[in-house]
Amino acid sequence: MKLVRYGKAGAEKPGLVDADGKIRDLSEHVSDVAGAALAPAQLKKLAKLDPKSLPAVRGNPRLGPCVGGTGKFICIGLNYSDHAAETGATVPSEPIIFMKATSAIVGPNDDLLIPRDSKKTDWEVELGVVIGKKAKYVSEEDALDYVAGYCVLHDVSERAFQIEHQGQWTKGKSCDTFGPTGPWLVTKDEVKDPQNLKLWLNVNGKKMQDGTTATMVYGVKYLVSYLSRFMSLQPGDIISTGTPPGVGMGMKPQKFLKAGDVVELGIEGLGTQTQNVKADA
Amino acid sequence: MKLVRYGKAGAEKPGLVDADGKIRDLSEHVSDVAGAALAPAQLKKLAKLDPKSLPAVRGNPRLGPCVGGTGKFICIGLNYSDHAAETGATVPSEPIIFMKATSAIVGPNDDLLIPRDSKKTDWEVELGVVIGKKAKYVSEEDALDYVAGYCVLHDVSERAFQIEHQGQWTKGKSCDTFGPTGPWLVTKDEVKDPQNLKLWLNVNGKKMQDGTTATMVYGVKYLVSYLSRFMSLQPGDIISTGTPPGVGMGMKPQKFLKAGDVVELGIEGLGTQTQNVKADA
Repeated sequence: MKLVRYGKAGAEKPGLVDADGKIRDLSEHVSDVAGAALAPAQLKKLAKLDPKSLPAVRGNPRLGPCVGGTGKFICIGLNYSDHAAETGATVPSEPIIFMKATSAIVGPNDDLLIPRDSKKTDWEVELGVVIGKKAKYVSEEDALDYVAGYCVLHDVSERAFQIEHQGQWTKGKSCDTFGPTGPWLVTKDEVKDPQNLKLWLNVNGKKMQDGTTATMVYGVKYLVSYLSRFMSLQPGDIISTGTPPGVGMGMKPQKFLKAGDVVELGIEGLGTQTQNVKADA
Repeated sequence: MKLVRYGKAGAEKPGLVDADGKIRDLSEHVSDVAGAALAPAQLKKLAKLDPKSLPAVRGNPRLGPCVGGTGKFICIGLNYSDHAAETGATVPSEPIIFMKATSAIVGPNDDLLIPRDSKKTDWEVELGVVIGKKAKYVSEEDALDYVAGYCVLHDVSERAFQIEHQGQWTKGKSCDTFGPTGPWLVTKDEVKDPQNLKLWLNVNGKKMQDGTTATMVYGVKYLVSYLSRFMSLQPGDIISTGTPPGVGMGMKPQKFLKAGDVVELGIEGLGTQTQNVKADA
């Protein structure tokens, strides 16, 4: 299933995408793509519905973030060996964890706002993992039982805020609109192997990132298990699993986003995002 | 006003503490001490109520975290010059920001659970600042307009998780029960000067921390303004402003919490917390 949230920001409705790519309204069956609705048993119930029996959504509504009620937006740093190399860092001996503010989460095609005083707003396409039920001290073997599905994530990053204003990266990761999420929450039954997905990102039509999750250092199973040693994971929590090479910071000369740019990104089977870059008011 | 949330975890009701220290039920007036109820105009309405006209709450219910619906739990690192010194760090030239998981938030007197495989669970009494309305790009001068009030916060920290397992502190700050919050949200009208409050912490009756917010490096106004450059702040967001000296990591030899310990902490005018330390299951 491809689950979506559509409508005005803050008032999105739940839906699913049918075989023809049309959105069908799920409001009669779940209140939101969030919380308890993400549990395996609930997702199974939804999967039994005939999409054609659901009301078709008219027009072409805005898509919101594909999961609601996210309590934690957890990111993994330097999780592709070739991306670590391009930033001058070494591959970490354990996963590096940091948080993005949940207030940074927006829809996949919402405007990307360059914060005031920013000169180094950078892009990072990432595979997002959405938690489906509470996970605490879970083994790597069992880890996927706690995953509802996957989505495209844009871990927008302001490098000066992240690196040049004293420690802890969260400062450069949390600005409003820095977490476009979606278009779809693709349930895990539709993703044969999360460690073998192509992912890419274009700026103004030029391919900047072109990688595969096959080169992740720490895979999804390991990350869910590892994280659950340090904090409990709740339904709707998002894990953004790191980015492949090709970020602006790694270029010579470095290249960053500016108002007027258009960013497109996608992951095999998980859909695409398009953001117009604008200056924040 | 001293606002509280009382009752079972996850189903707390809103209340206020009357002049005799008794809890009065606020359910008829607000659904929770959270979100829009924290706006200045809403707090003014509550302040006009006669506490004696509100139903008295019977017995001695559990207190929950004094604010609900927290979207961001933002912490400031090394924000007391004498604490920086004891940990061997220098005072940062800008505030250090990191996040605690919101899933770590518990009531002020709930059990403090030592995570599995933890050997270095440490204490940190901190002044908590609760945001009352959305703040983005706000000046230091206007910053307190966006603050609903203050509370006691225990920024429990696992030092090995924080420091010895690869970068970014969030890993050692986010375990379940690592964020006791309350007992009260004391509205800002009752706190004459947030930069002149005594704060202390005892372990098994022995005073470990005994400081004052007067020695904070970056004060509340500055922090709210500074943070709002990097992310928008929402009602219910919590800023934990750093800890004075006296943490276990800074002692010679170092001292950490173990099952059976009792931690008490408090801040002048903001109440006290008591936690029984237990091993996590």
